[in-house]
Amino acid sequence: MSGFVSFVSSGPGDPELLTVKAVKRLQAADVVLYDDLSSGPILDLARPGADLISVGKRAGRPSAKQDHVNRLLVDYAATGAQVVRLKSGDAGIFGRLEEETLTLDAEGIAYEVIPGVTSASAAAAAAGIPLTRRLTARRVQFLTGADVTGGLPEGLNWAALADPLATTVIYMGKRTFPALAAELMARGLPGDTPALLAHGVSTPEERLERFTLHSLAQHLTAAESTTPALILYGPLAPPKA
Amino acid sequence: MSGFVSFVSSGPGDPELLTVKAVKRLQAADVVLYDDLSSGPILDLARPGADLISVGKRAGRPSAKQDHVNRLLVDYAATGAQVVRLKSGDAGIFGRLEEETLTLDAEGIAYEVIPGVTSASAAAAAAGIPLTRRLTARRVQFLTGADVTGGLPEGLNWAALADPLATTVIYMGKRTFPALAAELMARGLPGDTPALLAHGVSTPEERLERFTLHSLAQHLTAAESTTPALILYGPLAPPKA
Repeated sequence: MSGFVSFVSSGPGDPELLTVKAVKRLQAADVVLYDDLSSGPILDLARPGADLISVGKRAGRPSAKQDHVNRLLVDYAATGAQVVRLKSGDAGIFGRLEEETLTLDAEGIAYEVIPGVTSASAAAAAAGIPLTRRLTARRVQFLTGADVTGGLPEGLNWAALADPLATTVIYMGKRTFPALAAELMARGLPGDTPALLAHGVSTPEERLERFTLHSLAQHLTAAESTTPALILYGPLAPPKA
Repeated sequence: MSGFVSFVSSGPGDPELLTVKAVKRLQAADVVLYDDLSSGPILDLARPGADLISVGKRAGRPSAKQDHVNRLLVDYAATGAQVVRLKSGDAGIFGRLEEETLTLDAEGIAYEVIPGVTSASAAAAAAGIPLTRRLTARRVQFLTGADVTGGLPEGLNWAALADPLATTVIYMGKRTFPALAAELMARGLPGDTPALLAHGVSTPEERLERFTLHSLAQHLTAAESTTPALILYGPLAPPKA
């Protein structure tokens, strides 16, 4: 009796931005393990009777939380269940996928990964702009703005991040953006470089705001908001007419 | 009488990796303009009677081709049609989206962009590995390996590309990879850096092959193959057990 785990990317939030394959896996699942971010209307796609288990933000330490998720994955799979592990955005991009697949590898449990729409693609699409541009943005890069302590990650590649010919997308970086932007400007990236702040992409709460590198840093210094958001900066195309 | 253009991301190839929204737009379209890459079973989703128009690779010059696509978009929208412009992968990533949206802006034609699964996410998922890793690959970057002449693009950011702490994904870069890899190794990126060559991701022709930076460069120097492929390199997770 051997179960199976599908790591299913849930996309940016809108249930219509799930892939057809993701919907099929949800509909066939005996158990769905989900984080807070990927909950809501997406869970309505699961069949009635499926176990829906939140494994999101807890009071406990991060390591305890990950161990807990790993334990649940293994225990449910061991019962022969079809397990869906829902991951927001694309499971392979800042989804802590490997922490969970390593455990399944060690236990000999079969799994698959269903790719999905990452929030960067959804934010750009909502703004009607591309992430790459033929001559001016030939490279696009994604990074997280915070490490486990909540501060800027160590060892950032400043030459990569201050490149005026790349589009950069920062996940979970609102709090650290003023410090990041200050460093980028000190390294020569112009303060008037276009920037976009995207909240709740593809959800009813979607809000897209245009800034420059400089004005977004000022805005976020003053704002003190903690709602999750995505930040894009670089040679962004102008707003849609 | 005013039509509407949906730029629909078709994902990496498997029709089940379209989003639910993309399928709906295809089913409702009067006209579908598609490139060769995104054709095949995905077009079967269009309703019977819809006009399916290939605007892919032509003998003509690139600029003539783009003008031709723009003309078709405008002319069809002017008839009041619901037009789907199908783009492989994610429309915003190396999809030449802006060349077409600028024309629609100029003509006052309304449009939307439906984001999708980019091939990098699909290749990583097929390999069972993430694009980002908590401590070793905190940044992921995508670039094209060739400009319009077929050679390495000008002005590559070598500090960004030779970063041992980033996952790099090269679209359309098989032919130029030996030159790129030589430069990366000259700049200190170890020749034994893991690399993955991915053909036909998510299609029946899917083939994933593991290399190192050095051995992939040698393989591609000898191979002379022109089928499209994706190349990943960086601190990639080991192959699935």
